[in-house]
Amino acid sequence: MDEEILSFIDNHTEDALRDLIHLVRIPSVAAEGGDSMERAAEAVAKMLEAAGMKATIHPTSGASVVTAELDVDAKRTLLFYNHYDVQPAGDLDMWDSPPFEPEIRDGRIYGRGVADNKGDLVSRIWAVRALTESGLDPPVNVRFVVEGEEEISSPHLEEFVRANRDFVSADGGIWEFGGEGLDGRQEAWLGLKGIVYVQLEVRGLSHDAHSSMSCILPSAAYTLVRALDSLKDPEENILIEGFYDDVRPLTEPEREAIAVIDVHEEEMKHHYGIDQFVLGLSGDALKERYYGSPSCNIRGITTGYQGPGSMTVLPAEASAKVDFRLVESQDPETILRLLRKHLDQHGFQNVKIAWSEGYPAAKTPVDHPFVEAVSRATERAFGHRPVIHPTSAGSGPLYLFRGLVPFVSVGCGDYDSRAHSPNESIKIDNFVRSAKRAVFVMDELAKM
Amino acid sequence: MDEEILSFIDNHTEDALRDLIHLVRIPSVAAEGGDSMERAAEAVAKMLEAAGMKATIHPTSGASVVTAELDVDAKRTLLFYNHYDVQPAGDLDMWDSPPFEPEIRDGRIYGRGVADNKGDLVSRIWAVRALTESGLDPPVNVRFVVEGEEEISSPHLEEFVRANRDFVSADGGIWEFGGEGLDGRQEAWLGLKGIVYVQLEVRGLSHDAHSSMSCILPSAAYTLVRALDSLKDPEENILIEGFYDDVRPLTEPEREAIAVIDVHEEEMKHHYGIDQFVLGLSGDALKERYYGSPSCNIRGITTGYQGPGSMTVLPAEASAKVDFRLVESQDPETILRLLRKHLDQHGFQNVKIAWSEGYPAAKTPVDHPFVEAVSRATERAFGHRPVIHPTSAGSGPLYLFRGLVPFVSVGCGDYDSRAHSPNESIKIDNFVRSAKRAVFVMDELAKM
Repeated sequence: MDEEILSFIDNHTEDALRDLIHLVRIPSVAAEGGDSMERAAEAVAKMLEAAGMKATIHPTSGASVVTAELDVDAKRTLLFYNHYDVQPAGDLDMWDSPPFEPEIRDGRIYGRGVADNKGDLVSRIWAVRALTESGLDPPVNVRFVVEGEEEISSPHLEEFVRANRDFVSADGGIWEFGGEGLDGRQEAWLGLKGIVYVQLEVRGLSHDAHSSMSCILPSAAYTLVRALDSLKDPEENILIEGFYDDVRPLTEPEREAIAVIDVHEEEMKHHYGIDQFVLGLSGDALKERYYGSPSCNIRGITTGYQGPGSMTVLPAEASAKVDFRLVESQDPETILRLLRKHLDQHGFQNVKIAWSEGYPAAKTPVDHPFVEAVSRATERAFGHRPVIHPTSAGSGPLYLFRGLVPFVSVGCGDYDSRAHSPNESIKIDNFVRSAKRAVFVMDELAKM
Repeated sequence: MDEEILSFIDNHTEDALRDLIHLVRIPSVAAEGGDSMERAAEAVAKMLEAAGMKATIHPTSGASVVTAELDVDAKRTLLFYNHYDVQPAGDLDMWDSPPFEPEIRDGRIYGRGVADNKGDLVSRIWAVRALTESGLDPPVNVRFVVEGEEEISSPHLEEFVRANRDFVSADGGIWEFGGEGLDGRQEAWLGLKGIVYVQLEVRGLSHDAHSSMSCILPSAAYTLVRALDSLKDPEENILIEGFYDDVRPLTEPEREAIAVIDVHEEEMKHHYGIDQFVLGLSGDALKERYYGSPSCNIRGITTGYQGPGSMTVLPAEASAKVDFRLVESQDPETILRLLRKHLDQHGFQNVKIAWSEGYPAAKTPVDHPFVEAVSRATERAFGHRPVIHPTSAGSGPLYLFRGLVPFVSVGCGDYDSRAHSPNESIKIDNFVRSAKRAVFVMDELAKM
């Protein structure tokens, strides 16, 4: 089947890009909401229908979930997970062209969402269209789940998955993101870490006091600093009792997989302007930490006066945003309970967990046959096998599909794609090859 | 001499208030600068001249210092220290009447600077005027030093004092502030604590990273938290080696003075919405801490994302503003050096002291005869002896006059004066009595 399909994709690159441009022009910023969300959902549904699929828009209490299905009564079923929402544009002055008016320059297409995640979505829709318009049945049943709240933590995806367990169950799934690494090699991600994210708040006084009063009045800022310092020692060990109880070591196949990964330490150090990684780690130890360790991070702290010069204040309150990234089998609710217990036992009863959110990690085993299927498909489309990352250190709603579908995340991004930043872009060549890879994934899954 | 002078003051209250209103209408906000500063200096000089004194405007690299002298060849000399600059008005919506359009309501006058420090200044000028317009020589030589940068840490007062040591040397001095406490009793303050104020900065990365990278990238926020926590233990002991070396215990006269002070613990707790003071202190222990202990306070911390909801960031940098209040004989430069040494020795070489300022404490001994002179003068003007505070916990440029003049700080403010806040005000009755007290201070100093 190869040649005909591949030609169709090459010959319809302009049409696929036109679909992508149409979709990027709809500013479906989940954080802002508004009627763009529904317009984007409808546009996606139309594109799915144009590819010969039956699309449905499912209302939720938030943004709609769009699904589509092409049931060819095949033995295997492939599921694509994508999202039509995007990050806010951010500082418009930082964009070389308007974020919602896509522009093509030097073989790349620029605009908010082209990398994350509208480019992936459109390339996958065109993969199906290449088959159906060529008059061919895909070798597997194909399904799409396209949500509109991924950038705001997918608050309604769980209710959708719970109500549609049969629909989302599949023999293989392609997750939303991925692409080309620093060295030009394709990367495939098999999992996401879990997360517990908390806002810690301390109120020390009913109102700010003059800083001279700090000799006798309690300090919210110092209480918060002490609480934060109590969470982790200088060797990066998280000090919450029981925190590591459910952490399991990397499996042997995972160790083998990461052994061949080049994390480009020097380039990364240069990129972040650092002399060394935490604890001076490098090589295998660094990789084991990245793929296999939970972490504790301060995302932000705010208290008191932060402007230029001086203001003589003892701040009444202080707050911090902290996240814990979790590895497989750590339970977010347990971690949250252990955190509260830790604070109480260390004298921080007045450090309030003002709000929290969290979900567990999820990953597809490195030796799952579908991983090999995606690797072969990638080799056919890009000419080389992808680097296999047992997990990303990031988090996402992958866990909702645990036990229902083995997901692998590959996509049309690259090292310069700047997802979430100004001048987001993808290479058009990767966009085209990603559509081809999606076709090959169907083929490889059928053979699996 | 009493009756004639007192009658003059009573009869010219309207005129004195007119002067005060005139001065408050000039928005001499030191932090904002502009031509208001020079207009205020000139207005002050005119008022001093109108009181029969010889006034001089001394340019500095910042705002001018206004001085005045009435040399009657007396044995003793009295020096008044005041400032004509004021704090910014702050949020105009919080003011019941415009900050620079003074208004009289219910026996109080409202406006920015009436309490801090234009009311005190005008009341003192009118004390001299009461004598000279009555055709009387004051019983002491009188001098004024009125600066225009007190609210921005008096950056040019040192150069002025150094160049005018003879002029500022006197047998007694009245410092700028003071007034009526919570219980209606007058308060006199004999000193100010010293201060070291630093901005601590940590740069961990050249730019913010995704928070998932915190498992392998250094955290500026955590480094800052650890550095701050290393400065002080939970029992409020400052852990910088050598920090307490030069701290001397309170003197016996100071202990006797504070023994009779009622700090109104319950009212203060209610005011600040707290159940207890630091370390659960109360009574003598609380007072000893307030009057005799240095302190370490976090004025502000800023790092990372501080808005609502979540943003997945590992912040590249973090900073904190920290002040140390010092007691007598602690040297700010030594403390700053010890702080740097502490940070280096505890592995915080990358915590930068981005800038610092500081000056030492200063106080007049509780048993100095001029303290008694001011107490008597207060009793004659207000009907009761003042509460003697060996020091304020606040800081100011008092140290510049150490060895040159014994200062006592009394003034026309009260517990509701809201200096530095919206609706700053004073009681007109206190304004009038403060003018009378200034006359009595001259009389008592002459007898000293």
